[in-house]
Amino acid sequence: MKEIESLLARIKSGETTIEEGMEELKFLPIKSLHHTLIDTHRELRNGFTEVIYGEGKSIDHMVEIIEAQKGKCNILVTRISQEVFDKLNERIDGLEYNQLAKTVTHISQEINYKDSTIGIITAGTSDIPVAEEAKVTCEIFGNKTEMIYDVGVAGLHRLISRLEAIKKAKVLIVVAGMEGALVSVLGGLVNQPVIAVPTSVGYGASFEGVSALLGMLNSCASGVTVVNIDNGFGAAIAAHRINQV
Amino acid sequence: MKEIESLLARIKSGETTIEEGMEELKFLPIKSLHHTLIDTHRELRNGFTEVIYGEGKSIDHMVEIIEAQKGKCNILVTRISQEVFDKLNERIDGLEYNQLAKTVTHISQEINYKDSTIGIITAGTSDIPVAEEAKVTCEIFGNKTEMIYDVGVAGLHRLISRLEAIKKAKVLIVVAGMEGALVSVLGGLVNQPVIAVPTSVGYGASFEGVSALLGMLNSCASGVTVVNIDNGFGAAIAAHRINQV
Amino acid sequence: MKEIESLLARIKSGETTIEEGMEELKFLPIKSLHHTLIDTHRELRNGFTEVIYGEGKSIDHMVEIIEAQKGKCNILVTRISQEVFDKLNERIDGLEYNQLAKTVTHISQEINYKDSTIGIITAGTSDIPVAEEAKVTCEIFGNKTEMIYDVGVAGLHRLISRLEAIKKAKVLIVVAGMEGALVSVLGGLVNQPVIAVPTSVGYGASFEGVSALLGMLNSCASGVTVVNIDNGFGAAIAAHRINQV
Amino acid sequence: MKEIESLLARIKSGETTIEEGMEELKFLPIKSLHHTLIDTHRELRNGFTEVIYGEGKSIDHMVEIIEAQKGKCNILVTRISQEVFDKLNERIDGLEYNQLAKTVTHISQEINYKDSTIGIITAGTSDIPVAEEAKVTCEIFGNKTEMIYDVGVAGLHRLISRLEAIKKAKVLIVVAGMEGALVSVLGGLVNQPVIAVPTSVGYGASFEGVSALLGMLNSCASGVTVVNIDNGFGAAIAAHRINQV
Amino acid sequence: MKEIESLLARIKSGETTIEEGMEELKFLPIKSLHHTLIDTHRELRNGFTEVIYGEGKSIDHMVEIIEAQKGKCNILVTRISQEVFDKLNERIDGLEYNQLAKTVTHISQEINYKDSTIGIITAGTSDIPVAEEAKVTCEIFGNKTEMIYDVGVAGLHRLISRLEAIKKAKVLIVVAGMEGALVSVLGGLVNQPVIAVPTSVGYGASFEGVSALLGMLNSCASGVTVVNIDNGFGAAIAAHRINQV
Amino acid sequence: MKEIESLLARIKSGETTIEEGMEELKFLPIKSLHHTLIDTHRELRNGFTEVIYGEGKSIDHMVEIIEAQKGKCNILVTRISQEVFDKLNERIDGLEYNQLAKTVTHISQEINYKDSTIGIITAGTSDIPVAEEAKVTCEIFGNKTEMIYDVGVAGLHRLISRLEAIKKAKVLIVVAGMEGALVSVLGGLVNQPVIAVPTSVGYGASFEGVSALLGMLNSCASGVTVVNIDNGFGAAIAAHRINQV
Amino acid sequence: MKEIESLLARIKSGETTIEEGMEELKFLPIKSLHHTLIDTHRELRNGFTEVIYGEGKSIDHMVEIIEAQKGKCNILVTRISQEVFDKLNERIDGLEYNQLAKTVTHISQEINYKDSTIGIITAGTSDIPVAEEAKVTCEIFGNKTEMIYDVGVAGLHRLISRLEAIKKAKVLIVVAGMEGALVSVLGGLVNQPVIAVPTSVGYGASFEGVSALLGMLNSCASGVTVVNIDNGFGAAIAAHRINQV
Amino acid sequence: MKEIESLLARIKSGETTIEEGMEELKFLPIKSLHHTLIDTHRELRNGFTEVIYGEGKSIDHMVEIIEAQKGKCNILVTRISQEVFDKLNERIDGLEYNQLAKTVTHISQEINYKDSTIGIITAGTSDIPVAEEAKVTCEIFGNKTEMIYDVGVAGLHRLISRLEAIKKAKVLIVVAGMEGALVSVLGGLVNQPVIAVPTSVGYGASFEGVSALLGMLNSCASGVTVVNIDNGFGAAIAAHRINQV
Repeated sequence: MKEIESLLARIKSGETTIEEGMEELKFLPIKSLHHTLIDTHRELRNGFTEVIYGEGKSIDHMVEIIEAQKGKCNILVTRISQEVFDKLNERIDGLEYNQLAKTVTHISQEINYKDSTIGIITAGTSDIPVAEEAKVTCEIFGNKTEMIYDVGVAGLHRLISRLEAIKKAKVLIVVAGMEGALVSVLGGLVNQPVIAVPTSVGYGASFEGVSALLGMLNSCASGVTVVNIDNGFGAAIAAHRINQV
Repeated sequence: MKEIESLLARIKSGETTIEEGMEELKFLPIKSLHHTLIDTHRELRNGFTEVIYGEGKSIDHMVEIIEAQKGKCNILVTRISQEVFDKLNERIDGLEYNQLAKTVTHISQEINYKDSTIGIITAGTSDIPVAEEAKVTCEIFGNKTEMIYDVGVAGLHRLISRLEAIKKAKVLIVVAGMEGALVSVLGGLVNQPVIAVPTSVGYGASFEGVSALLGMLNSCASGVTVVNIDNGFGAAIAAHRINQV
Repeated sequence: MKEIESLLARIKSGETTIEEGMEELKFLPIKSLHHTLIDTHRELRNGFTEVIYGEGKSIDHMVEIIEAQKGKCNILVTRISQEVFDKLNERIDGLEYNQLAKTVTHISQEINYKDSTIGIITAGTSDIPVAEEAKVTCEIFGNKTEMIYDVGVAGLHRLISRLEAIKKAKVLIVVAGMEGALVSVLGGLVNQPVIAVPTSVGYGASFEGVSALLGMLNSCASGVTVVNIDNGFGAAIAAHRINQV
Repeated sequence: MKEIESLLARIKSGETTIEEGMEELKFLPIKSLHHTLIDTHRELRNGFTEVIYGEGKSIDHMVEIIEAQKGKCNILVTRISQEVFDKLNERIDGLEYNQLAKTVTHISQEINYKDSTIGIITAGTSDIPVAEEAKVTCEIFGNKTEMIYDVGVAGLHRLISRLEAIKKAKVLIVVAGMEGALVSVLGGLVNQPVIAVPTSVGYGASFEGVSALLGMLNSCASGVTVVNIDNGFGAAIAAHRINQV
Repeated sequence: MKEIESLLARIKSGETTIEEGMEELKFLPIKSLHHTLIDTHRELRNGFTEVIYGEGKSIDHMVEIIEAQKGKCNILVTRISQEVFDKLNERIDGLEYNQLAKTVTHISQEINYKDSTIGIITAGTSDIPVAEEAKVTCEIFGNKTEMIYDVGVAGLHRLISRLEAIKKAKVLIVVAGMEGALVSVLGGLVNQPVIAVPTSVGYGASFEGVSALLGMLNSCASGVTVVNIDNGFGAAIAAHRINQV
Repeated sequence: MKEIESLLARIKSGETTIEEGMEELKFLPIKSLHHTLIDTHRELRNGFTEVIYGEGKSIDHMVEIIEAQKGKCNILVTRISQEVFDKLNERIDGLEYNQLAKTVTHISQEINYKDSTIGIITAGTSDIPVAEEAKVTCEIFGNKTEMIYDVGVAGLHRLISRLEAIKKAKVLIVVAGMEGALVSVLGGLVNQPVIAVPTSVGYGASFEGVSALLGMLNSCASGVTVVNIDNGFGAAIAAHRINQV
Repeated sequence: MKEIESLLARIKSGETTIEEGMEELKFLPIKSLHHTLIDTHRELRNGFTEVIYGEGKSIDHMVEIIEAQKGKCNILVTRISQEVFDKLNERIDGLEYNQLAKTVTHISQEINYKDSTIGIITAGTSDIPVAEEAKVTCEIFGNKTEMIYDVGVAGLHRLISRLEAIKKAKVLIVVAGMEGALVSVLGGLVNQPVIAVPTSVGYGASFEGVSALLGMLNSCASGVTVVNIDNGFGAAIAAHRINQV
Repeated sequence: MKEIESLLARIKSGETTIEEGMEELKFLPIKSLHHTLIDTHRELRNGFTEVIYGEGKSIDHMVEIIEAQKGKCNILVTRISQEVFDKLNERIDGLEYNQLAKTVTHISQEINYKDSTIGIITAGTSDIPVAEEAKVTCEIFGNKTEMIYDVGVAGLHRLISRLEAIKKAKVLIVVAGMEGALVSVLGGLVNQPVIAVPTSVGYGASFEGVSALLGMLNSCASGVTVVNIDNGFGAAIAAHRINQV
């Protein structure tokens, strides 16, 4: 707002006429909104993290974005195959790759972790890559995570035996494919916020995750919310929004 | 086969020529298959029960079918509203109506119940009409039933507290709407045959039972089978097929 | 756990033999889980509110449930038409009806409101009934609400002019039909948790809310979560889960 | 119509009898319609451009078509991969390839540009290939374009800051994937014709562009029209139809 | 902007301090954008017409909106049944009802018609109500219309015989149900802008207009655009946007 | 073509100049095509039958059409409820109503039946209304029919016992709901043309005839063709097209 | 039936007792049906052609089937890629490959062609492979074909100019992708049987042929029938069924 | 339960105080349920077989699981390609691969077969891989199988000729793609339990098995149950559940 303060001073001193001031202010609304919005955006992103959705971007394009931000903030690139990582790694120092999550990170700023924890729970072992994408995202935004894998409802004892651990988290991300029933069972057992992530795990009439998605939207457990299929990143940001309230 | 025996005797005695015999036998294959199939059908239906799908049939048509069978075998009419029953009841004696199941029955033959029991389980109270259709069907075909209602997974304790009773049945029919998760949980807890009936209970993205149907087809519990949406009758016949093996 | 303490005391004193104790404990796991789960459930529901999903339930059934709980806890019945309410009102004292939300409430316990507020925002005036269902649910569970109606993105200025108010809520419920674009715009403008409720408002290819649902699941704003179509109640419970963390 | 004039002259002179004239005229209606329609078609295509949809055509087939038209009119081939272009390029001189748009052009006729401009706007960087296909098509048909990329609504400030430029175009093509919300926001901000192109950008429940398509069809902004998924070419021809009115 | 001029004058004169000025300007961006957008919106709507989507609105609500605008601008209410109109008509003077279009209009301002014409074409007689909604909308916004009904492609001669008339319009709205083939045939015969409106006319696998919608989106005629099913209003606004360029 | 002959004669005689002749011929292509097409259409319709699709047409509109054609050709109106028929019957003499087929006919011209027969076969009794619509249509166009009802594959003997009769028809129309398996069985048993009509008979996942439609399109019996759901009329016209070859 | 005649003779002569005769006849119904059905099947297949659906079959399996039939009847193998053909060709003499149709044929029996012709018409050049599969199938079953390619409705003149040729065929197969409008236009222009084949040609919302399929099922031209997507073989068999009536 | 007996003994002897006993029992419910459930699970799996779903698991992961169980129980791994098997085979002794079923087995425990047989029936040869997966699964769980292949309904004689064999099995698994009509025909001919497995065999509108799935769910034969598309394993477990009752 310094720019406006200076303008008003110039008006007051007569250095700038009222007409000239009017002209200068003409584009102010848009410019100001512009800046407000940038700030909001930055704040949401925590001021310290740049996120790049890697799928479909060229190597050159990604190198350019990463180099521009490197050292200024932490960087997270999602949906990166081993092949793509290898090419990025040849050109940029200090990248780390998570094979399961298919994420690339570059950490230059210390991450200040909040005290509370986000629990990330999967129904099966095939759901783990999505859970790992959520984990990496949660952590780079300063959220501690607790991973609880392979507790699907066909073996209810596995879930029950981990219930104490689950109840300690502030927010829960539940990752499941097939029919996604874990969300309904867990949603009835806990009273924390539950974010459900349907995965494309399954075959035949699972329709690449649609069955799990519909199951979760129709969960008989009240107050469960859902994100897009395989969207571990989105679930993590949703959990991060809750964890910072 | 008496007809064939008599034909062969007539051939042997010369009363019928070989040419005439050939002619008589010409339509035999189809006629015989006809009778075989009728017998199979009758056997499947237990020899004692006529089933009429009531939806879309006129009162006159149903009266005619019922009168033709009355006293010869037991009769089950499904999908009958109170209004339709009242009209049938004015014209035929001895009908019984089940308001929940929307079934009409006429019992003239003693039903011999098998020793084993078919368990019929619902997730919610709204699933009860479908369960009752299954119950009436099971019983008229000579199967005892055990009804266990409202044990949906959002309140897992209700299910757990009924588990002993559930384990005693020889076959289980599980009736659930919304996401149908009860099937997955129960399918993992028992080793009996489990027949899942999705119901059209739910709203929004339940799509009149499609979500429950997909959930059940994709159940993470192995060896669960599924029938059509709201098809309590079909589930009962499937259970009856198993109960008589 | 008093029952167990007494058992151990009886063992110690010899009043009960070890064999008898083993027998008594046999059903303990299930009974205990039973009680634990009931408690969890009660806690989630806030200890003070009974919720009844009214759709498809008979008047008698609802009267019975309400009478059983009346005075012991607050009561919320959802999806009740004016006709049904009139019948309930003839038989039970002290009911209140919200015509827009189609909810019936019976308040006998003082509601202790939390300090923070849940913002409930609609794209159009036709989305208001769903928003009102959310509002009534939020409030009976002790959450204050701020209603911001008719700020759909086709008239962006209406949204912008309410932004300050929106930013003050701790959690946001965004209710929109048609293409649901309000969620994407708002999700990019704020960093609170955003719960999106697609509504069946629209015609033609809106497919009873499917277009809005898909739009919200695919929102380009990160970290937005979604509930079932028209599910104002579910969104409110989700917001309540967040508001109490 | 010279052929008809000559026929009538021959009738008049008696060189041709009325019967012979009748015979000659017998196929006239269809032949004439044929020519009328060819003219219409040619006019629509601007008289100067041949368009070839490259997907699924063999190299030989395309070479044949291109060689037949080369030099007579400008040529546009859409949906051509780098590999296919390389093969075409070995056999035909003067081809130009646009890697993003995946188009091949051969320009032999001067393009007369109209004064007005078609604005082509994308929500994200992944939508650019579709936008480029639109751009190439617009230009070869004599329309100037103004490209405005990456102004999706999750960062509303980017859109607002480009609004002045957007308002100067005569027609707008808006290219967006995911939920396609940019169309609704922009459609409410401008009063030009808006042609929306859903793209297959997104994952999970974006269903290869269906979510964006439905979002755009249900846009709360009035008077927005939609073309097929990823159909940059079709949007360009639609804009060209408008730009020439 | 007088408010800003006055502020600057007060700054210059010292009546207001710079600090106070800063405070006053704080909400300026949003307020200004607010006003800009209102203006845009008003301009789009032509300054003279208020449009009310009647479906789902209460009589009281509509009366209130109409009374507020009556005499200040022309008013169009869409999707109004005869019953609803009768109730509105009892309470407000000067309303006109179009039974086919199901629209209510109140005209208090002279409409200045543009010279050019919008052609509105239907495949069958059942598509006429949607066409009439388009016609009423076009006209209240100052566009002349030419109606050409029942020229579906199963009787190609009807279309061909009206081709001259069709070619005279500046923009075409094509309304068709079933398979919507009229759009493809017409799109190939003319070079004007073509806006296709699928209707829910048809049965069985027409799926309430989905078949027509898909047919139109996949039209082999280039540059055809599509609006939502049965959306005569939307097509008219799209045509109006084009007609005023 | 008399008009053209006369024109050429006038040219020859000098009564009309070549220039005037050119002008007269200018609109000939379209006019001629117009007439050709009308003739084709008339021929297809057999020269003797007017068909009116009754659904959604007003009584007045239908009365007008019927009165215009009455006595000139036979008339068939489809999809007419008893209520609508009663109203038509009050205003027009000589109408006949078929309650099952929901058709109205007015016969003033003798129907000349072809020698060959169209067989119309249903899987169940609920499919009969669609079969009757086919029957009425076949007959008014001069085709004899053989009706074979209720031979669905769950009771294979019923089908086998009617096979001789079925094999005598020249074309077969097979009407079935639910899974439509009759088409596959019958298609493998006969070598006549088979036209399959899926019906909306069924419930749950029959999706108003979609299951039957898909089953028929995927029939393992080669060379079976399919029409729209419940489209008895369309199947009859298809059979009529074949029966007249 | 010689076997039965011999049996009766043995009965008559006393060589076989009635009891033995009964036993021999016991499996007669099924055996006879068996033979009847084989004959029907053979007749349908024309007595001279073996058809093998190549997709998904192993080379060994196909070689075995072909070798077993070679020389006894003509052989048609569908859906064979060039690679697969090359392998078959190494092992079997006398095979012919049609690259467009992707069919392999082995002709050892003279084909007797019927006098009448089957017209095969495509909307675009991309539909040709499906049309060629139909052509090869038609011909090996003794049907002459007339191919008319690339007459889609966006260029109506191409269709009109081929109308005379089209009208000469006894049956028409119409092959079209995208929106399939050619079927509606052609169905209204001719009165022969029309078999529509939707193709998977198109992109975006063509959904691999679903749009064309729906368009054809909903065709406004009466009496058009439809086969599965890309099913040139099925259309040919359907045309063959008609051509032999 | 020895652990509890010991606890009670320690209480009785005073070695452990009541308070300490309470603490020890605190987690008992969950631990006990845990063990009960593990036992149920083990029993269901027959105590002797470990099943591993191979799709998407890494070689290392599978080797680890197999090595852990090898020799302790029999092992079944499903959905393993030849390539994956080759890698497993290099690292583990004693594996057997079934190329059709794509299963790997390791048998170390003698399998005790039940007396009764599970019949596995396919419509076509392309359905055999799914049937083989069912066969391998049935057998490793101690069920004898009878395979009856290629008896689809388009050639009804093949089915009829195998009927005697089919009727001898205790349970039937019916595997079919395309329209799945075999299930309806067979379900009407037998009275055993019938488990239907839709396969993804087919093309075009078979939608990867959806048509077969819908056909089977809507089967006109009563009491047929369905599993997921291509789910031979699930059908086998369902049959095993029935075979052991």
